[in-house]
Amino acid sequence: MLIVLLSQKVLLFVIIILIVYLIDNGNCYQDNNNSIRTCYYPMKFRAPQSPSYEYLYIPGDILLGGFFPIHQPPSNELGSMQCTAIKRERGIQRLEAMLFALDVVNSRSSHLMSSILSHSKIRFGALIYDSCDYEPYAVERALNMLLPSIDQCLSLEKRKESSVIAGVIGSASSMVSMALSDILRLAEIPQISYASTSTELSEKLRFQFFSRVVPPDTYQAEAVVSIIQFLNWTYVAVIKETGSYGERLTDDFKAKLKNKTICIAGELSVNIKDSNSYLRVIKELYEDEKYRFVIGVVIFAQEDSVRQILNQTSSRNELNGRWVFLGTDGWGKKWYPVENFGRAAINAITIAPKLYLISEFDEYFKNLIPSKNTRNPWFVEYWEETYKCKFAHTPTTIFNQNYTRSCSDTDSTYTNFSVPYFQEGYVHYVVDAVFSLVIAIQKLVDEKCLNSSETKLLCKEFYPFDGKTLLSILRNLSFRNGK
Amino acid sequence: MLIVLLSQKVLLFVIIILIVYLIDNGNCYQDNNNSIRTCYYPMKFRAPQSPSYEYLYIPGDILLGGFFPIHQPPSNELGSMQCTAIKRERGIQRLEAMLFALDVVNSRSSHLMSSILSHSKIRFGALIYDSCDYEPYAVERALNMLLPSIDQCLSLEKRKESSVIAGVIGSASSMVSMALSDILRLAEIPQISYASTSTELSEKLRFQFFSRVVPPDTYQAEAVVSIIQFLNWTYVAVIKETGSYGERLTDDFKAKLKNKTICIAGELSVNIKDSNSYLRVIKELYEDEKYRFVIGVVIFAQEDSVRQILNQTSSRNELNGRWVFLGTDGWGKKWYPVENFGRAAINAITIAPKLYLISEFDEYFKNLIPSKNTRNPWFVEYWEETYKCKFAHTPTTIFNQNYTRSCSDTDSTYTNFSVPYFQEGYVHYVVDAVFSLVIAIQKLVDEKCLNSSETKLLCKEFYPFDGKTLLSILRNLSFRNGK
Repeated sequence: MLIVLLSQKVLLFVIIILIVYLIDNGNCYQDNNNSIRTCYYPMKFRAPQSPSYEYLYIPGDILLGGFFPIHQPPSNELGSMQCTAIKRERGIQRLEAMLFALDVVNSRSSHLMSSILSHSKIRFGALIYDSCDYEPYAVERALNMLLPSIDQCLSLEKRKESSVIAGVIGSASSMVSMALSDILRLAEIPQISYASTSTELSEKLRFQFFSRVVPPDTYQAEAVVSIIQFLNWTYVAVIKETGSYGERLTDDFKAKLKNKTICIAGELSVNIKDSNSYLRVIKELYEDEKYRFVIGVVIFAQEDSVRQILNQTSSRNELNGRWVFLGTDGWGKKWYPVENFGRAAINAITIAPKLYLISEFDEYFKNLIPSKNTRNPWFVEYWEETYKCKFAHTPTTIFNQNYTRSCSDTDSTYTNFSVPYFQEGYVHYVVDAVFSLVIAIQKLVDEKCLNSSETKLLCKEFYPFDGKTLLSILRNLSFRNGK
Repeated sequence: MLIVLLSQKVLLFVIIILIVYLIDNGNCYQDNNNSIRTCYYPMKFRAPQSPSYEYLYIPGDILLGGFFPIHQPPSNELGSMQCTAIKRERGIQRLEAMLFALDVVNSRSSHLMSSILSHSKIRFGALIYDSCDYEPYAVERALNMLLPSIDQCLSLEKRKESSVIAGVIGSASSMVSMALSDILRLAEIPQISYASTSTELSEKLRFQFFSRVVPPDTYQAEAVVSIIQFLNWTYVAVIKETGSYGERLTDDFKAKLKNKTICIAGELSVNIKDSNSYLRVIKELYEDEKYRFVIGVVIFAQEDSVRQILNQTSSRNELNGRWVFLGTDGWGKKWYPVENFGRAAINAITIAPKLYLISEFDEYFKNLIPSKNTRNPWFVEYWEETYKCKFAHTPTTIFNQNYTRSCSDTDSTYTNFSVPYFQEGYVHYVVDAVFSLVIAIQKLVDEKCLNSSETKLLCKEFYPFDGKTLLSILRNLSFRNGK
């Protein structure tokens, strides 16, 4: 009888184990024939035909999502789905700016930090993806932020335990930010861009959970007009890039020209997807009779197009110095567009949002070395590209295949390898975005847990995560950084 | 001892039931605090802040997804998230064209149908959503096509049993088609548009699973140039709508003008989100010295903008007949843009893709009545708007609130209520898209089940659904409709 009773107990025990097991795991599995994903944070949702990708994950009580254009988009010419060259300034520097800001927040010692956070003990983690400046991949990777919130395999309890993604920092290009916003609004996750300046994004109804710490392009158009007036130019040519950035800016510019004594000699369109368009436009600008007396050439284009324009200009000696280019923030203070084509850019005037250099960031960034900076999965690639060297453990690509020298941590100390470092113009906007989001989250936690009896860091009233309230806190936020 | 043994069996039985129950249902539940969805097809995924929405579901062995702009997008002026006025031609007529095509396919009797399908017994169902011509909602609703394929609550067996969405017909506007394509590629579902003509969509790498049965805009630009040459015009004005459609067309047009003796007096931009822009543009066109001798005005704009332009023109008597408008397929053969503003459109020339009138569709559509056409959830609204009447059971909206007469099935027979019916220009493209997709699916089934021992309609080799192969079949498809 004892044996039988025991076996009853064993059976009961088996039932309990089974229930616990099944509830715990739902019936999550890896289905290789279909979309691939793992069950819990951080997620790596991927369509079967998409290339695999890295992500940066720093655990924390609350996570901040991030999107940066670490690589350039896949190229039609290569015909491969892989993202291409690494973006050292727009990508790596800005990503590191986010990590720098999180370090400042989490250490709570730096004088850079607002005092609002000084009493807080919350650890802020991060989950950062490469947007590749390419909407399809940004959308795919953004699903990693949406899926956990609607995953029916995760019980409500499990969802509470895993860290919430409370907000997303990103992305750079306005088109990508728009695509992201369509996904993030579904999960009610507020999004803050550090560089998307398109006027379109000001539509509150359409981009509900989107905010930005940069001014919209209408102000840039005004600045261009002021500069032209200051220089007493009356006759300019316009080169615009096909796409939201160039076209909206051109429209804004023309609207601001009303009732001014400034004429447009002609508008020339370049297209990042048509590499011949650059040669064509420069040829037309040089040969067409109507541009004969043009000095000022306004360029409404992003960095890759600016680089192509300067490339074509510098390739013919007689063209260097022929025009004075007037560029917007797509060019700004960046090194990348003018690298090797400096002569074509002589006398150029460019506009960038006001730059607040963060000297602490310079120090932080200059001290990063590959053997230590392992939390950034793209840093070795950055290092190879910066110092034209190759690590033994990295795969050979079309980008590093010609680098024969071995990379080492000390590359940066040899002046003969050294490459000029400038703090990229939007670094402090990334830091602003992170600080704003973190402070808003802290206020949300304070608000939700004010009357809670719990002493836990995040009280149960904090769940389910309330993105709507966070958004309204964010929109009414004002703070001063310390110092 | 028997009792004990029995209770052991009972316990075992309980275990089995528990296992079956838990595997069957995962731990699916409805979580009202978070995103709302049901567990199985058809799905109605919705973000908490989005308005609820209807969908059209026709069961079948294999489903065809569909996206049509049934309503206009939410309006900033109303400040509500609700979609606004019903689109009778671009929306309802085209949607009914899809249902008409499916009826033809499923009845397998009509002489319209290709003979390729005559041996097939597969029933093709449909799952159709309203895109509202608005990317955020198109993306939200497209998730209903993606989520089942990655839902870990559905076991592989369950997924097989529920009907597969093998392809999607849609959408109309190119911007919406682009947003859809970013989601559908993740589920490897081929997409066929019946009306998206933007040149951008020709990028094969970026819009991998996208195809279309309409020609891209480059051909339209060429047609506009030919018409201008034929009319011996040398000097035209251009009104373009801000956005992908108007801007790409303008670029294409200007590219085709190279080496032609045609000058552009000026480009004027209108913006659907800035209702004052129409008045401004017409005023400028009338008053600015440089447009004084302009006769031909090319309009690169979609129907809503064309309507606004004609509205502003017709509001001043002296302007009617002042210009000859030259419109593209955004205007085409549609009634909507000229309704009430016909005088402003006198002499206008518009371009539309070649129209093949389907007389069977006219008959089908004219015989639709509200009491019978219950599969279309938007049909009562269409009826109210068409016959300016109100059904007792429909909610009062800003659109039907002034209609005092009661609607009835016989409204369409009274000539005094009658509104002119024209077959919309893209109806036959919708039918083409459905036929192409259905034939490709049939070929896929034939290919997969050729060597199967099963006699089931859809053999087990058909699963998991292979969107990639379907796409390659689709791209190599050629067929003739019967007749």
